[in-house]
Amino acid sequence: MSALRTIRVETAPAYDVLVGPGTLAELDLRTRSFSARLVLTDDHVEPLYARPHAPSGVPVLSVPAGEDSKSFVVLEHVLDVLAEHALDRRACLVAFGGGVIGDLGGFAASVYQRGIAFAQVPTTLLAQVDSSVGGKTAVNLERGKNLAGTFHQPCVVLADTRVLATLSDDEYRSGLGEVVKTALLEGEDALSYLERETNAILARDPEVLAELVARCVQHKAAVVARDPREAGERKTLNLGHTFAHAIEHVAGYGVVPHGLAVGVGLVLAARLSHAAGIAPTNELESRIERLLHAFGMPASLAELSRRGAGELPADALLRAMRHDKKSASGTPRFVLLERPGAIRFDVECSTPESMLAG
Amino acid sequence: MSALRTIRVETAPAYDVLVGPGTLAELDLRTRSFSARLVLTDDHVEPLYARPHAPSGVPVLSVPAGEDSKSFVVLEHVLDVLAEHALDRRACLVAFGGGVIGDLGGFAASVYQRGIAFAQVPTTLLAQVDSSVGGKTAVNLERGKNLAGTFHQPCVVLADTRVLATLSDDEYRSGLGEVVKTALLEGEDALSYLERETNAILARDPEVLAELVARCVQHKAAVVARDPREAGERKTLNLGHTFAHAIEHVAGYGVVPHGLAVGVGLVLAARLSHAAGIAPTNELESRIERLLHAFGMPASLAELSRRGAGELPADALLRAMRHDKKSASGTPRFVLLERPGAIRFDVECSTPESMLAG
Repeated sequence: MSALRTIRVETAPAYDVLVGPGTLAELDLRTRSFSARLVLTDDHVEPLYARPHAPSGVPVLSVPAGEDSKSFVVLEHVLDVLAEHALDRRACLVAFGGGVIGDLGGFAASVYQRGIAFAQVPTTLLAQVDSSVGGKTAVNLERGKNLAGTFHQPCVVLADTRVLATLSDDEYRSGLGEVVKTALLEGEDALSYLERETNAILARDPEVLAELVARCVQHKAAVVARDPREAGERKTLNLGHTFAHAIEHVAGYGVVPHGLAVGVGLVLAARLSHAAGIAPTNELESRIERLLHAFGMPASLAELSRRGAGELPADALLRAMRHDKKSASGTPRFVLLERPGAIRFDVECSTPESMLAG
Repeated sequence: MSALRTIRVETAPAYDVLVGPGTLAELDLRTRSFSARLVLTDDHVEPLYARPHAPSGVPVLSVPAGEDSKSFVVLEHVLDVLAEHALDRRACLVAFGGGVIGDLGGFAASVYQRGIAFAQVPTTLLAQVDSSVGGKTAVNLERGKNLAGTFHQPCVVLADTRVLATLSDDEYRSGLGEVVKTALLEGEDALSYLERETNAILARDPEVLAELVARCVQHKAAVVARDPREAGERKTLNLGHTFAHAIEHVAGYGVVPHGLAVGVGLVLAARLSHAAGIAPTNELESRIERLLHAFGMPASLAELSRRGAGELPADALLRAMRHDKKSASGTPRFVLLERPGAIRFDVECSTPESMLAG
């Protein structure tokens, strides 16, 4: 049986991430001491989990599900509702949903009255393994994803692996993109574990899931504690993301699930690592492709296009990468891999257009 | 002759406030090391000072002058323009204008790519003595002023007292509201100095001005360094502001200049201090009234109404105070005075409606 795992994130202030089946039952207890609470969720999660699990008497605010809610218009609406409910500075916002709700809710909490507490209840695999931990909040601008945001650590994260059972296959696979990324950052053992447990992972075996989420959170927590504001090491967590953000930008926000874009971004990062002479062979690229395919995920730009991303022309991708927020003066910066667990970040190099042609 | 004064604000990170005639000449030198710069200003300040003094080649973004620009719509516009100019994380936004531009520009800088540097060039007396120092940024929500914002310290503040010569009398007086507030916080010496130098202050004597601004900055810098996030002592800087915010809210944002509302707020805070048994006599209330009148400023709600604020009904003011962001669970909190320099904060008390009737 899966035990509940508690992972301490040693940022300032520190907080707990509770992982495992049933952690949702802790929500009331873990947020009871605040002067007031408000649950922010989306219209998919609201009837399934947010309303049934919201502590009694706590108002629930629902915004439309999807990436379009990561906008200033919706952010202002959330803040207006916090003000309508007269929440004061000692109140807590509960962000109950996937990555969009976490990013939006965290941003709202960080600026409402110049900062109130917020709790994260991530309900997607993507949010549980990645976005709910680390304190990055954001909304999108016309020119790019996550271009406006803050660093604001949650007071607690409740990752209940039971809620993952109702995710669509697409949403579940999207989370696997970040799972593969984390394994590549951790090293050979973690990558082999995924290759070995592919079937159990696809079957959403509860024991394997709790183990997977906890491992990812543990890795991210350690990195974030050492570098909360992404001055150095934390940049490694962006492995595959320069490509992924360009893909999402060219396809249009919300068209390609983030994790699928990350999956293809990992393949491209491995390919570029070899092309740039950092990885001795292209073996890792093939391993990542095989793993993505085993998970039923696209492993190339062409496969992404066929699965609904539309045209992803190389020149448009290159242009988007030059505007990436990690680019210094127009040259994109990459996280590259020598091998699993051996990572270089802040590598400024240009991507041959031919690499993106297919 | 006025010497240039440099005041070090010991927040983390620390920064310099340069006060005196001619500090604007330092702008290029003090911001040259950033990867890129953009000047944010308003359409009043742009032709007078911002464009003539913007370092060569640095783009200037102008927004409409006035409180209406402290909105999410304008904030998003500023962020879009930063992204259009492809500013990266090592860039610097120069907020060149009054309090609105400082609050808006500071907010934009604090969230653009999760935080870039910003320099303050305050061009009003109000901004020089108060809002440009301390790192509070904000925009307004429908329900209240400054309800959304961040703490984000500038990298440098250039308070050039020469630019104060072109302020309208109304704008200049608005700054005097915070000057009187600071004197009340400092103590008897500072208050007597204002009473003695009234004529020199009204004549905008450059020597007296440099002294005044430097004193106010020095006081605020010391308080802010000890309590950057307003956990305790910094709350004293809100003397008169619970009333002032209510006045501005009821009159409609931008109708009453902030400093004039603060002036009347100081009178009301002194009156409440006596009513609540904290001040032994009502002598201080009379002294503040005399000083405001000497400066040509309104000293009561009735005088404010006659000078364009419109009706300020007591019940509407009380309602607005209950929604003040410093209120805990509906009871407004006040900063009250035993005497100049002897301050209490976080005083929860109700205001008799009769106190606001005139």
